[in-house]
Amino acid sequence: MTWTGEALRLLDQTKLPTRTEFVDVNDEKQMWDAIKRLVVRGAPAIGVAAAFGAYLGVRSFDGDSRALLLRLSEVCDYLATSRPTAVNLFWALKRIQRTALGSLNEEMAAKACTSSTDIKQRILDECLGMLDEDKQICKSIGTHGAELLRSLGSKSPQQILTHCNAGSLAAVVYGTALAPIYVGVEQGMRFHVYADETRPLLQGSRLTAYELRQNNVPVTVLCDNMVASLMSAGKIDAVIVGADRIAANGDVANKIGTLGVAIIAKHFGVPFFVAAPTSTIDLETARGSDIPIEHRAAEEVSHAFGTQTAPSDAEVFNPAFDVTPAELVTAIVTEHGVVRAPYRESLSAVISTRGTR
Amino acid sequence: MTWTGEALRLLDQTKLPTRTEFVDVNDEKQMWDAIKRLVVRGAPAIGVAAAFGAYLGVRSFDGDSRALLLRLSEVCDYLATSRPTAVNLFWALKRIQRTALGSLNEEMAAKACTSSTDIKQRILDECLGMLDEDKQICKSIGTHGAELLRSLGSKSPQQILTHCNAGSLAAVVYGTALAPIYVGVEQGMRFHVYADETRPLLQGSRLTAYELRQNNVPVTVLCDNMVASLMSAGKIDAVIVGADRIAANGDVANKIGTLGVAIIAKHFGVPFFVAAPTSTIDLETARGSDIPIEHRAAEEVSHAFGTQTAPSDAEVFNPAFDVTPAELVTAIVTEHGVVRAPYRESLSAVISTRGTR
Repeated sequence: MTWTGEALRLLDQTKLPTRTEFVDVNDEKQMWDAIKRLVVRGAPAIGVAAAFGAYLGVRSFDGDSRALLLRLSEVCDYLATSRPTAVNLFWALKRIQRTALGSLNEEMAAKACTSSTDIKQRILDECLGMLDEDKQICKSIGTHGAELLRSLGSKSPQQILTHCNAGSLAAVVYGTALAPIYVGVEQGMRFHVYADETRPLLQGSRLTAYELRQNNVPVTVLCDNMVASLMSAGKIDAVIVGADRIAANGDVANKIGTLGVAIIAKHFGVPFFVAAPTSTIDLETARGSDIPIEHRAAEEVSHAFGTQTAPSDAEVFNPAFDVTPAELVTAIVTEHGVVRAPYRESLSAVISTRGTR
Repeated sequence: MTWTGEALRLLDQTKLPTRTEFVDVNDEKQMWDAIKRLVVRGAPAIGVAAAFGAYLGVRSFDGDSRALLLRLSEVCDYLATSRPTAVNLFWALKRIQRTALGSLNEEMAAKACTSSTDIKQRILDECLGMLDEDKQICKSIGTHGAELLRSLGSKSPQQILTHCNAGSLAAVVYGTALAPIYVGVEQGMRFHVYADETRPLLQGSRLTAYELRQNNVPVTVLCDNMVASLMSAGKIDAVIVGADRIAANGDVANKIGTLGVAIIAKHFGVPFFVAAPTSTIDLETARGSDIPIEHRAAEEVSHAFGTQTAPSDAEVFNPAFDVTPAELVTAIVTEHGVVRAPYRESLSAVISTRGTR
């Protein structure tokens, strides 16, 4: 994800692993579509992309400052409808609106309500700041996560299972779940990663395996239903996944299939780690059952890769996320350190460390 | 599966659900290929098909009786290499050889060693007998299974999860795991079946959903990684799956993914049933870890439906089966009734009921 000066350039993730195509997003409608169609996905990346979407939606607006804020609010409301589960989307849009409001208040205090150019520049600066900040956050998650993995023992390579893609393709660089791998490798650790393919859209085989191989990390792809077989053979030392939203009690919404992996990991005594920036923690959501779960089109399941694979008159169940209860989560790795149960206390504490934005 | 008088006619299961094509198998090489490529699959169906394959491999043989038996032995050894896990394959081939040997012994006792025509007829009769017998066995499994489901309570429709295909397409009619559904419907029960799509080859969405809809049973298809989400929402009353081999201690080899479903079912307190003919029980295999597990081509995972979905330099893990330990199996439904733990005793007892073939 890079800002060209004119547009947000995104690697089109729907085309990987066979084609490397970039898309320049020029306005808020294109951004809504890019988020909805998963051209860009992954909670941290969605957050930053949505922030740029908000900027793109107002950059040509030529009304005064107050009208600009109204327009910004409309654009943000619109972008918020693209996907319901990842809280980073809403967090980023609120942050942009707070930036604009802060800028307006300063103008009013200075009695300088003449133009909205300054506010638009402040919004763009905030977006660019978020882009940079995301790199720092992911690097910190990687550092804390690598230390956590090192504490599991000196086995080399460590064999890590991950689900979906919470790597550099889901963020700006490093990613969340894969950050401990990348940082660990920089520090001389060795890993063999097992990547669940992650039906229906195969972010695991298409994206995680792709980016790990691009970075020379050995990876084995497996179907989602092979996890128990792999763990029963003693092949997995730890699971690390990302998160789309973490409720105040430590329940974790993440890509569909995460809950099953967590249950199987518990059965075999394999530690189950979640890696996520504190922006993914939503203290306003008390528990996992309060998190809205996106259901996606039936065709993602019934027409796998353009081929019809289920009879036309069968119903389809296609939730995009599930919720893993806190008791199955061994630890949560954030940019401010590793958080453990009881999560209600530890998550509040780590949010205070972050400060209020 | 029907005997045309000249060939064994198989519905080509690799083409479902969009195309209904039949294949006439005329010799043992074609049968080996049909089993290997999964044109015909499912433990009971493989057994009967392999028996016909043995017949097709000797029907044109014009040597004497003893030479015929040698030839039959070669054909059976060859067919046995098609797939390693389902014990019904080996059971059926042994049964055909015993039939031929019995026939030879009778001839010898009668000093009538002139031709092998009679033996070949006896082999064909045995094949036709197995075809008919499979229907009776599946119907009995259905009757016992429907009674078992009825004992769970009067909820209507009952919501049943199944994995892979152990329906009429995996047997001659009724199937094993789906037999309780079909017989239950005949008896006035109502069901809603949830069919795991069952990667990599999607026997659940392509075959189970297809045959259930053909029989007007409501069905919902889901990706394998959605099972935990479904059960956490309280939507599943029971799981029923088939088996490719049941060890003497009750460990069950079945399609990859079954173990994960069993672990998740236990986590949510959902009963986990296995439905299989007694020919699937292998008392000579002491425990699940002794069952050979077939690993299949990487392309089944990395090139889903002709589209490359994983990078070329990623490794692939693709076992076709896994082993569910006996302690996760609530009950096993056979044609002679429902068997429960301790399985070492109950499986031996049910085998004696069957008698020795």
